[in-house]
Amino acid sequence: MGGLCPCGERFAATYELTAGGEAAARRIAGDICIEQTVEFPADLITRPDIRGEVFGRIESLEPAARGRWRCRISYAVELAGGELTQLVNVLFGNTSLKSGIRLVDFTITPALGQAFPGPRFGVAGLRALLGVPKRALLCSALKPLGLGAAELAGLAHDMAIGGIDVIKDDHGLADQPFCRFEARVEAVAAAVARAVTNTGKPCLYAPNVTAPIDRLGTRVRFAAQAGAGAVLIAPGLVGLDALRSVASMTDVRVPVLCHPALQGGYAAATDAGMSHRVAYGLLPRLAGADATIFPHVGGRFGYTADECLDLVDGAIGPFGGLKPVVPVPAGGMTVERVAELARFYGGEVMLLIGGDLHRHGPTLAASCRTLVAAAERAADERREPPPGPGL
Amino acid sequence: MGGLCPCGERFAATYELTAGGEAAARRIAGDICIEQTVEFPADLITRPDIRGEVFGRIESLEPAARGRWRCRISYAVELAGGELTQLVNVLFGNTSLKSGIRLVDFTITPALGQAFPGPRFGVAGLRALLGVPKRALLCSALKPLGLGAAELAGLAHDMAIGGIDVIKDDHGLADQPFCRFEARVEAVAAAVARAVTNTGKPCLYAPNVTAPIDRLGTRVRFAAQAGAGAVLIAPGLVGLDALRSVASMTDVRVPVLCHPALQGGYAAATDAGMSHRVAYGLLPRLAGADATIFPHVGGRFGYTADECLDLVDGAIGPFGGLKPVVPVPAGGMTVERVAELARFYGGEVMLLIGGDLHRHGPTLAASCRTLVAAAERAADERREPPPGPGL
Repeated sequence: MGGLCPCGERFAATYELTAGGEAAARRIAGDICIEQTVEFPADLITRPDIRGEVFGRIESLEPAARGRWRCRISYAVELAGGELTQLVNVLFGNTSLKSGIRLVDFTITPALGQAFPGPRFGVAGLRALLGVPKRALLCSALKPLGLGAAELAGLAHDMAIGGIDVIKDDHGLADQPFCRFEARVEAVAAAVARAVTNTGKPCLYAPNVTAPIDRLGTRVRFAAQAGAGAVLIAPGLVGLDALRSVASMTDVRVPVLCHPALQGGYAAATDAGMSHRVAYGLLPRLAGADATIFPHVGGRFGYTADECLDLVDGAIGPFGGLKPVVPVPAGGMTVERVAELARFYGGEVMLLIGGDLHRHGPTLAASCRTLVAAAERAADERREPPPGPGL
Repeated sequence: MGGLCPCGERFAATYELTAGGEAAARRIAGDICIEQTVEFPADLITRPDIRGEVFGRIESLEPAARGRWRCRISYAVELAGGELTQLVNVLFGNTSLKSGIRLVDFTITPALGQAFPGPRFGVAGLRALLGVPKRALLCSALKPLGLGAAELAGLAHDMAIGGIDVIKDDHGLADQPFCRFEARVEAVAAAVARAVTNTGKPCLYAPNVTAPIDRLGTRVRFAAQAGAGAVLIAPGLVGLDALRSVASMTDVRVPVLCHPALQGGYAAATDAGMSHRVAYGLLPRLAGADATIFPHVGGRFGYTADECLDLVDGAIGPFGGLKPVVPVPAGGMTVERVAELARFYGGEVMLLIGGDLHRHGPTLAASCRTLVAAAERAADERREPPPGPGL
């Protein structure tokens, strides 16, 4: 409770690091305390308030598997200055550039929870909007890139008729000359609205609003006015704070889907970068995403079951009182895997199945009905609590 | 020159990938062509215009070292839709999530060079602004975090008196309660202006404008009006497109320094992520950064000499006619290493020396004079063209 950081709250980051022994590990942890705060030779800093309040503080250090150590370092909440950009910087900014150190977890404080209240909807909010109380939520994507607005609208209409809950743009649909953003959003939103009038079952369209930051707000407002009902944004392309800015708009309140494009680097190195829990769970959740898309094990991408469970725990496990961000396993999923996916993830999940719906038949709407039926069967069959932490 | 992509220009990305043989490598390269564009089962796409114009195209495939293959894939310029966010998505969005594939290089086309004209100043522009025709440019940083505006202003004054060319905020200075952005920028800019009046030698102050995106433009304009003369921004924290938006403002035209915070994940895995050339050279340059800060070999961080040279080649080598972005080696550099650094980087460089200046004496201004003298000596001694590509 000093003069620089009087609030007294501290948030904490957990790092895994490579070290030959406890003394070496403690030295590296001490370096993190300095690098992430003053970034200045510690011996040249004599002021006790800076040393006591601004330096990071080692809260614990313990051995982990295979020559790794797990250390928890706390920081005064004032260092983040109430800004997500700076909060993330304190957690991992410069240390991300060092080899052998991985950010695997972090906590927030009540003050941070007020500044970053997290998802507005989460799973309960999405279920209420969609009128789906029990089965896994279902999402599909409008593609391929190259189709025009009318063709994509036709696909969206059939998906909504078939009972899909959330229809998202492929994240490669931006504002290409052959498929302009505004024309696409108007056509697809109108087509989905027609289908919903027909079926009586709610369906949200999530256009991809990932865009240059000077056009982002305009696109979100255009989408909302067109009746899209949700938006898709890729923070790896436009910045996590851009996602936060969309999720906290006061004039537009729609669910925000987070897409993982370009974020692979963070998770690729197992001894550096960020854990899946942090990159695809905690950070999107803190920024206010309502759903977080990621590659499920066994699809086109290489994530493991453990990585997916780690991610899900970050998405829906306890985290400063924030609502869960709905996990959305994706990346080459198939209708045949619905029961397996539902077992793996339990109730709080949205399954994203894209291209495979076009392999079934006889029509796209019929494929979607098959998918919905499979998800309902899986929900009926789910008796036991599913495996995995926090589920 | 079809109906979807009539312009006919194609940009190309080079990936290194792991494969057991040429057939496997070609299969992976073919997957990239699909993943980065239509993201849809290729066999379900029959339209010849989408297959011919929208699919990525393998331009070359050749073996690289140790079981790796190097493949060059081109994409129609229309796929980027004139947006940096989507251009980066086409280059590496989903493929960043796959293991064993690294983005190591890319080219741009005339249309992209018009949309993204790169640095406004570059090395020649910075040299002209600073009145330093020959020696390495010199930069230092205001720190530690915890000091107030008046104390930082005192440091900046002494650095400017001592002849430092560019004084930047530590990238951890944001808008903390003990050092508010506006108070700091006003105090430091005024202190630097007083020193410049005294010495007659230009000096730019680069406050850290990395901020929530809804405050970014306000901070840049405040800094410019206060007379700061430059800005510092970390695209890893706020997004590469935010850097572009600052570098292309029409009412504010100041040099933009790019800070690498949080970008370590991209470069950490040697078989995935992005090369140093791409992450710290080409991308900041394309976005319009005038200088790019990165950890030089032998400091507190683990980059190698080869990685630094790869980066520098991306920063100043030929790239679609764009001006060079000045390399700024940093990360625990010392006054004693100036001659070595100047030899390593040659003429187009800005050396960033932070904490070490506070170890010399008898005053900070005297330390800075020692640094300037060392850089001048190194420039006089430079006879031979330095080693390394593109230098």
